[in-house]
Amino acid sequence: MRKMIIASTSTVYKSSYLKYLKPTLSFFFKDITSILFIPYARPSGISYRKYTTIVKIFFGEINVAVRGIHEFKNPTDAIKNAEAIFVGGGNTFELVNQLYKNDLLSILKEVIDAGTPYLGSSAGSNICGVNIKNTNDMPIVYPPSFTTLGCFSFNINAHYLDPIEGSTHMGETRETRIKEFHVFNDTPVLGLREGSWLEVIDSTIILKGNHTARLFLQNQIPIELKSDSELTIF
Amino acid sequence: MRKMIIASTSTVYKSSYLKYLKPTLSFFFKDITSILFIPYARPSGISYRKYTTIVKIFFGEINVAVRGIHEFKNPTDAIKNAEAIFVGGGNTFELVNQLYKNDLLSILKEVIDAGTPYLGSSAGSNICGVNIKNTNDMPIVYPPSFTTLGCFSFNINAHYLDPIEGSTHMGETRETRIKEFHVFNDTPVLGLREGSWLEVIDSTIILKGNHTARLFLQNQIPIELKSDSELTIF
Repeated sequence: MRKMIIASTSTVYKSSYLKYLKPTLSFFFKDITSILFIPYARPSGISYRKYTTIVKIFFGEINVAVRGIHEFKNPTDAIKNAEAIFVGGGNTFELVNQLYKNDLLSILKEVIDAGTPYLGSSAGSNICGVNIKNTNDMPIVYPPSFTTLGCFSFNINAHYLDPIEGSTHMGETRETRIKEFHVFNDTPVLGLREGSWLEVIDSTIILKGNHTARLFLQNQIPIELKSDSELTIF
Repeated sequence: MRKMIIASTSTVYKSSYLKYLKPTLSFFFKDITSILFIPYARPSGISYRKYTTIVKIFFGEINVAVRGIHEFKNPTDAIKNAEAIFVGGGNTFELVNQLYKNDLLSILKEVIDAGTPYLGSSAGSNICGVNIKNTNDMPIVYPPSFTTLGCFSFNINAHYLDPIEGSTHMGETRETRIKEFHVFNDTPVLGLREGSWLEVIDSTIILKGNHTARLFLQNQIPIELKSDSELTIF
């Protein structure tokens, strides 16, 4: 039975790392003693070691031990044997690049489907979708493919941002970009605002957090989903 | 002798399409009667025909005829025979995808080097750099490569945006993203603000427009370049 938490962001404004998710994660990981952390996304390019230290500090507070995947000789075995898995945010392209380089996507999918609890934030949530074509990140590396886990049949747009009123900047809004995506693709896209997350229990997907989420379907007017509502069509 | 205008954007705030560049383009294209327009980037997914119509209206005002590359049977010959070329903005990934699909990058580089006047805006400017790893666009399609024309030895970050003061959004600033790029790459990046452009005359590259531009070199503090200054190190 699948058990996943798919968070838009690790950190909300004026808060500390994962703090807003602490009650949720305390419950989610209540039977877990250790998690495997995948730091490949390297936010701001920090090292695997530094990134893992940040994660260790947070999980120490809820009595869960953390080991980084880079600490294992065989990353495939590390995933196979993990009690739970957390894939952190950062650069989605570099994350996917490393997952391909280490040939880890299929084993990751396998253990998730078999019930290993999975936590993703930002880039770590993007890879749960069909592909990474809705990431906001800069394509700083060229991965072998954009195709990812496909844990559900839609894509995540993490850190979803509403148009900024009064902005003089002419770059596209997030909504414009997603609509552009739908000229070329028919995969639904869920715009997940910072502070929102999905709880996936087997085939049930529920929106959590204080915000609505914006669902984009090809050739349809976007829909605002309420918190606690179920994403029934996927 | 190379003659290029590399613009950050086609449109500045509260103005119409290419209007801020009109005096510059009137002079740049003064001996030109027709240009070849490459609409592959399809901003907001608009059709080649619609996009070309917008461009025709603008260039009509300065007495330059426009034909879209899609109107030609053989796009390679269209580029070879063009009096001048304009590659418009939109989605950089789709632009590069189509340029690869139609095998046009090498011929485009060839005619630019041979002196065919070239105008790029946004995505059309990005492709003049070494690769598109500093685009802000959403990766809505997967191109065969990120490598592009390499008309100079740096990359362009179009629509360069300074951090928004007081923002509560936790997504990365542009500067953070470019610094992240420099963890993995050593190509210099020029952050070109909206309303700025580069004038390239052979090997001389001059910053134009009302703004400074922000130059990022690996492991160095970013430099603000003044308008009318020459980019001497490239």
